[in-house]
Amino acid sequence: MLGVAVRQIERAEPAVIAALAGAGVATVHEAQGRTGSMGAGLGAIVPGAIMGGSAVTALCAPGDNWMLHVAIELMQPGDVLVVATTSPSDDGYFGDVLAEYVKQRGGAGVVLDTGVRDVAVLRAQGFPVWSRRVSARGTVKETLGAVNVPVVCGGQRVVPGDVVLGDDDGVVVVARRTAAAVLAEAQARIAKEEAMRARLREGAHTLDLLGLREALLQKGFRYVDGPVDPDTAGDI
Amino acid sequence: MLGVAVRQIERAEPAVIAALAGAGVATVHEAQGRTGSMGAGLGAIVPGAIMGGSAVTALCAPGDNWMLHVAIELMQPGDVLVVATTSPSDDGYFGDVLAEYVKQRGGAGVVLDTGVRDVAVLRAQGFPVWSRRVSARGTVKETLGAVNVPVVCGGQRVVPGDVVLGDDDGVVVVARRTAAAVLAEAQARIAKEEAMRARLREGAHTLDLLGLREALLQKGFRYVDGPVDPDTAGDI
Amino acid sequence: MLGVAVRQIERAEPAVIAALAGAGVATVHEAQGRTGSMGAGLGAIVPGAIMGGSAVTALCAPGDNWMLHVAIELMQPGDVLVVATTSPSDDGYFGDVLAEYVKQRGGAGVVLDTGVRDVAVLRAQGFPVWSRRVSARGTVKETLGAVNVPVVCGGQRVVPGDVVLGDDDGVVVVARRTAAAVLAEAQARIAKEEAMRARLREGAHTLDLLGLREALLQKGFRYVDGPVDPDTAGDI
Amino acid sequence: MLGVAVRQIERAEPAVIAALAGAGVATVHEAQGRTGSMGAGLGAIVPGAIMGGSAVTALCAPGDNWMLHVAIELMQPGDVLVVATTSPSDDGYFGDVLAEYVKQRGGAGVVLDTGVRDVAVLRAQGFPVWSRRVSARGTVKETLGAVNVPVVCGGQRVVPGDVVLGDDDGVVVVARRTAAAVLAEAQARIAKEEAMRARLREGAHTLDLLGLREALLQKGFRYVDGPVDPDTAGDI
Amino acid sequence: MLGVAVRQIERAEPAVIAALAGAGVATVHEAQGRTGSMGAGLGAIVPGAIMGGSAVTALCAPGDNWMLHVAIELMQPGDVLVVATTSPSDDGYFGDVLAEYVKQRGGAGVVLDTGVRDVAVLRAQGFPVWSRRVSARGTVKETLGAVNVPVVCGGQRVVPGDVVLGDDDGVVVVARRTAAAVLAEAQARIAKEEAMRARLREGAHTLDLLGLREALLQKGFRYVDGPVDPDTAGDI
Amino acid sequence: MLGVAVRQIERAEPAVIAALAGAGVATVHEAQGRTGSMGAGLGAIVPGAIMGGSAVTALCAPGDNWMLHVAIELMQPGDVLVVATTSPSDDGYFGDVLAEYVKQRGGAGVVLDTGVRDVAVLRAQGFPVWSRRVSARGTVKETLGAVNVPVVCGGQRVVPGDVVLGDDDGVVVVARRTAAAVLAEAQARIAKEEAMRARLREGAHTLDLLGLREALLQKGFRYVDGPVDPDTAGDI
Repeated sequence: MLGVAVRQIERAEPAVIAALAGAGVATVHEAQGRTGSMGAGLGAIVPGAIMGGSAVTALCAPGDNWMLHVAIELMQPGDVLVVATTSPSDDGYFGDVLAEYVKQRGGAGVVLDTGVRDVAVLRAQGFPVWSRRVSARGTVKETLGAVNVPVVCGGQRVVPGDVVLGDDDGVVVVARRTAAAVLAEAQARIAKEEAMRARLREGAHTLDLLGLREALLQKGFRYVDGPVDPDTAGDI
Repeated sequence: MLGVAVRQIERAEPAVIAALAGAGVATVHEAQGRTGSMGAGLGAIVPGAIMGGSAVTALCAPGDNWMLHVAIELMQPGDVLVVATTSPSDDGYFGDVLAEYVKQRGGAGVVLDTGVRDVAVLRAQGFPVWSRRVSARGTVKETLGAVNVPVVCGGQRVVPGDVVLGDDDGVVVVARRTAAAVLAEAQARIAKEEAMRARLREGAHTLDLLGLREALLQKGFRYVDGPVDPDTAGDI
Repeated sequence: MLGVAVRQIERAEPAVIAALAGAGVATVHEAQGRTGSMGAGLGAIVPGAIMGGSAVTALCAPGDNWMLHVAIELMQPGDVLVVATTSPSDDGYFGDVLAEYVKQRGGAGVVLDTGVRDVAVLRAQGFPVWSRRVSARGTVKETLGAVNVPVVCGGQRVVPGDVVLGDDDGVVVVARRTAAAVLAEAQARIAKEEAMRARLREGAHTLDLLGLREALLQKGFRYVDGPVDPDTAGDI
Repeated sequence: MLGVAVRQIERAEPAVIAALAGAGVATVHEAQGRTGSMGAGLGAIVPGAIMGGSAVTALCAPGDNWMLHVAIELMQPGDVLVVATTSPSDDGYFGDVLAEYVKQRGGAGVVLDTGVRDVAVLRAQGFPVWSRRVSARGTVKETLGAVNVPVVCGGQRVVPGDVVLGDDDGVVVVARRTAAAVLAEAQARIAKEEAMRARLREGAHTLDLLGLREALLQKGFRYVDGPVDPDTAGDI
Repeated sequence: MLGVAVRQIERAEPAVIAALAGAGVATVHEAQGRTGSMGAGLGAIVPGAIMGGSAVTALCAPGDNWMLHVAIELMQPGDVLVVATTSPSDDGYFGDVLAEYVKQRGGAGVVLDTGVRDVAVLRAQGFPVWSRRVSARGTVKETLGAVNVPVVCGGQRVVPGDVVLGDDDGVVVVARRTAAAVLAEAQARIAKEEAMRARLREGAHTLDLLGLREALLQKGFRYVDGPVDPDTAGDI
Repeated sequence: MLGVAVRQIERAEPAVIAALAGAGVATVHEAQGRTGSMGAGLGAIVPGAIMGGSAVTALCAPGDNWMLHVAIELMQPGDVLVVATTSPSDDGYFGDVLAEYVKQRGGAGVVLDTGVRDVAVLRAQGFPVWSRRVSARGTVKETLGAVNVPVVCGGQRVVPGDVVLGDDDGVVVVARRTAAAVLAEAQARIAKEEAMRARLREGAHTLDLLGLREALLQKGFRYVDGPVDPDTAGDI
C-alpha cells in the first residue's frame, strides 16, 4: 500500500459538495447519524474559513511531507488535500510555499492530522486549513508513503473522492456515494432547526419541541422543589 | 442523585455578582486564596466575553445533552449554565439552537466540561461560552442525568447558586455564602495592584514592592557576577 | 544550581537578532538543520506578535513564580524572559503586572513553559508572550529556583544569552555563537523560497523544483491510473 | 479554606466499609448509579491490592507535600489518606518513608491525584496506593494547604469520612451517609451477576438475560445476513 | 450505518491466523510495510497474553456498551471482538461477566478503543484483552450503534473478518485478503532477524549487517574523535 | 549538530556510578536539589530493573532509529544508551535484536524518549529499558541525526558521559563532574531517612523529625476540632 500514487479518482457532484459546505460541519455530522466527524482534536487554523471539496489523500511517514508534493500535483480544482501519517506527528507538514502550490492547482483547502506552520501568512490569506497543531518544526522528504489510497485522518476513514467539509467546528467526511442522501437529510434538519429557533423566540421549550418531556417521566425522572442542602443532595 | 431536577435554588446578590465579574477571574482566584479556578483546560470560546452569574447545573452522561434541555427551562435571568459529565466527553453538547434558548431565558452564559459547536455563530453573536474543546460531534438524548445538584466541573465543585465568573483567563467559581467576602478581598487586591503598577512605572522593583528581597537572602539565595560557563553552571 | 542568580550574561549582536526575527521561526528552524523549535505545545498567546531577543532565564518550582521577579530585575533592553520549571505546571506564572515590569525594563517579550493570565490585557497591549496554556491560577513565591542558568524550555536547552525568536508558528532558540551563521543560512533559504514561489505561480511543480522526482522512482515509487476499488487498495 | 486542619471527622461503620471493599470498585460504582469513580487516570500502583477506609483528606500546593505530614498524624486505624492539589502535579508526593508512617498510624491505604515514588519498595510491601503517575520527583514543604476539608480528587468530591475503596479497577468514593444503602444495592448486583454468569455458562445470551432484545427492535435495530461489501457498508 | 448488525462475515484461514499470531505484532507490522499497528495508546491489560483471530466489530456510543451484547452473540470460535466508539470514551465497556460470555462463544480475545474493568479477574484468568485504559466506570445500554460494519479502532480501519493480532507490544490488524502474503513476508523477516542475532553474538555490527554504513557516508555523516566540549558541540 | 558522531567521551568513575545506582533514582533526585529527573512520562518497561551507567547519546528523526545503530557500535561496557528525537515520537525504536547488540557491547541499559517493542522478550531477559510508551510500530533508517552530542531527553539535558540512573521510579541524570558530590549528598540522605524510619517505628511524627511543626504555626496554620459541616467548610 506504500510506495504508490493513484492518478484518477471519482468525485462527487460539485453542486452537492457546495450545498453540503453551506449546511455546515455540525449539521452534516448529525445528518449522517452522528458519524464522520474528525473530532475535537482537528481545529480550524484560519477562523471563519469554510471549505468543501473532494479528498485527495496523502499518507506520510512521521516528520516527512514528501507525499504532499506528489499529491498536490494530482489535485484538480475543487479538491481538498487530506494528510494522514503512519504514526502520530505534530510537525509542521504544510506552510506558505505549499499553500501557493495548492492555490495554483485550484485546491479548495487542506486537512492535516499533523501540525502546520507559516500560519501568520495562511491567516492573512484566509487559506482554508485544518490541523491538529501549529508547529514551526519542518519535515524531511526521505521516506515513501502513498497518495490517493484510503487513509484514517482524525479517526475517520477517508477514501479518495469522499467529500470533506471544514468550518470553525472542525472537519467532517461524507462518503462520495452517500453525499446526495446526506445533503437531503441535512437540508431537512436545517429547516427543522430554523422552525425550532422561531418557536424558541416565542417562548417555547425544547423539551416540548423535541417531544422529550414525556420520555423524561417514563424513565422515572422527577422534579423536587428545593432548594436542597448540597451536603445531602445525594440522598434526594 | 441521577434522575432528578431541583427547581428552586438560592442565589447570591446581583450587585455582588456583577462586581466580581468586573474584578476578573484571575484576581478573584487570588482573592479566595488561589482556589476555585477551573484550570487551563477550560477556555474562552468567544474571546473578550466577560460573564458572571448564578450556577444552574446539569450533570450529563457522556455524549448525551438531554439534561441541558431540562436545565435551561429552569434558568432565570442572570443564571449561568454549568455542564458536567459522569465521564469525560469532548462532544459538542451546546450549539446555536440552545444558545437561542438560553438567551430567551435571560441566561448570562454557559460553562461546559465538554465541547461546543456552531462556534462561528456563537462568536458572531458574542455569546459567552467556556468549554474544554470545539467539536462538531452532536449528542443524543437517551440517558438520565440530574439538574441543580452539586457537580464537579473543571476540577471544581459547583453547588447550584454558586457564583460563576468567566473571562479570557478561564472560569472561577465562588461559593454563594462567601461571595461578598471574596469581593471585598478582590477589591483590596485591585487597589494594591494599581498602586504597584504605578510604582513600577516609576522604576521600582517587585522584589521591593512585595517585600521579597530579604526573604531571598534568608533562604540562602545568592548572586554571582558572571558570565558563567554554561557547561559548569551546575557547579556554581 | 538552585538558589543562585547570575548577573551578567553575554548577548548576540542586536542586528543579527533583529534579522533572525525578521526571517521567522519556521525558516530559522530549517536553517539550523531542523533543530531548536520549542514544538507544538508552546503557542503564541497574542496573535501576530513577532519577537527576537537575548534569553534571560528563570528556573522555577511548580506553581511558584518567585524567580520571575529576580530575573526581570536583571533584564536589559532587548532581552527575552524564558521561564522553565523543575516539574510541569500549567499555572498562570505571568500577568499584566509583570508585563508592566518587563516593559519598564525594555524587555522584548516572554516565553513560558507554563500558563499565563490576564491575557485580555496582554492582547489589548500586543504584549509578545508565548506559553503552554492560559490559566487564571496564580502562583506563590516561596521556593527558590535560579536565574540565568541554562534551562530546558519547550524541550530545548536555552543558555542565557541565546537568541530566542517567537511568532505565530511558535518559538525557536538559536545558540548565541552560531547566530550569525544561522542567519546567513536563513537568508539563503528565504531567497530560495521566493524563487520557488515565483516558479510555482508559473505552473511549476515542487517535485521538479526540489529535484525529488527522480528520487521517487529510485526508491521504487510508482503511479497507477485508477480509480481503485478502496476495498482492495491494499492489494495494489 | 487553606491553612487549617480539622481534627475530628465522622466515619462510616467499619463493617459496612469492609463489605463495600469486598464488593469491588466496579460493582460499587454501578450500585450508586454509575457515580463516584475517580476514572481511568487514577491507577493501582501495587497490583492486586484491595483497600477500603474512611477518607482523611490533604489539599496541597503543586510540588509540595507538607500537608501529608499534617494529615497522617491525624489518621486513625482504618483511614485512607486522600491527596488533592490546588493545581495539577505529577510529582512524587509519597514514598517509602511516609508509607512507614502511615503503617504506624494503622492507615488502610493512600490515594493521590499526583505521582508516587519508591514504588519498588511499596510493591515489595504490598502497600495499597493509587495515583496518577509514578515519578521520582520529590516535593518541598513550603506552602500551606489544608487537612480534612472537602476536596476534589480524580474528578470526585471527597468529604472527610467518606468511604474510599480501591482495587485494580481504580478508586471509587461513597458518601458516608449513603454507604449502607449503596452496600445493599451492591450486594443485590453481585447476586444478579452470579446468576447471570451461571446462565451464560449454560449457553444463554445477555440480550435475553438483560431483557435487551426487544428494546433493540423497538429502536429500529435490524439484522442483515451479509457478508457485506465493506466499501458500501455505509449504504446498508 | 448505525442501527444494523451483519450476521455473516468472511474469515481468513485459521492456519494463517495462528501463524501470524506466532510471528508477533511487531514483526507483522514490519512485514506489511509498517502499517496496521493500533499504536502506543492501546496496551495489553493481561501481560503475556498472545491473541490472533477474525474481527467481529462493534461500534458503540460513548459510555454505552449495548452493541457488545449484540456482537458477542454473533461471535464464532476463534473470533476477536473489536470495539470502537463514535466519540472517544475511557469508560469500562468490558468486564468479567462479558468475558464469561466471550469464552462461552469460543472467542479468542477482545480489543477495545475504550477502557476495561474487573481487570483483577481478567488477569487471574489470563483473558486476552487490549484496551486504552483501565476504568471502573460502567456503561449504559441505551443508544444504538452497529455490529460487523467497518470501524476505526486505534487509528486503524478494521473490516469484519480482518485478522487481529495482540501481544505485549500492542495490536496490529491485517486485511483478510492479504493475510497469507503478509505471513510469508513475516516469516522471511523472522529468518533474517535470527540470522542477524547470530551474527551479532559473533561480534558483527548492524551497520554492516543492514548495509547502512555506506549510506551514512553518502549522506555526509562524519565521525569526530572527541571528546567534545558540550557547550560548543553545536559548532562541530 | 546533525550528521556527526563523536567517538570518544569522558566518563565518571565506575565506583561512583555503581554507588549512585544503589542509592536509587528518587534519592539521587533529592540529593542534587530536586533536579535531573526525567519525570513521570518516562517509565520502567521491565519492572524491578536497576541501572547505572555513562550516557552514550543518539539524536534521531521522528520514526527513524538509524542513529541507534551508530551509537551502539560506539558503546563501551557499562554505558547507557540515551535516545532523544528532534520531534516527539512514540514509535518502537528499540527491540530484541538491538537488545542483543547492546548486550554484546556490554551496555548497562537503554533510555528512550520514544516507544519500545518486543517487550515480552525484554521482560523475559530482564533487560533494563525505560521509555515513554510501548509500541509495535517499527522505524526507518533514512534521516541523519547525531551521536554523542548533548541532547534533551525526558525534559533533561544529557551530555555524553553524564551518569544516567534508572529504577522503578524512573530515570535521573547526574552531570559527570558533580557525580561524586551528589553521591556524598545521597548517602547522607539515606542515613537520615533510615534514622527517620526508625524513629517513626517508635511512634514519632514527621512534623517533629523534620522540624516542621513550628513552621506551620509561623505561617498561620491552625487546627479546629471538628467535625465540620462540609457545606460550610469554606467559612472556617
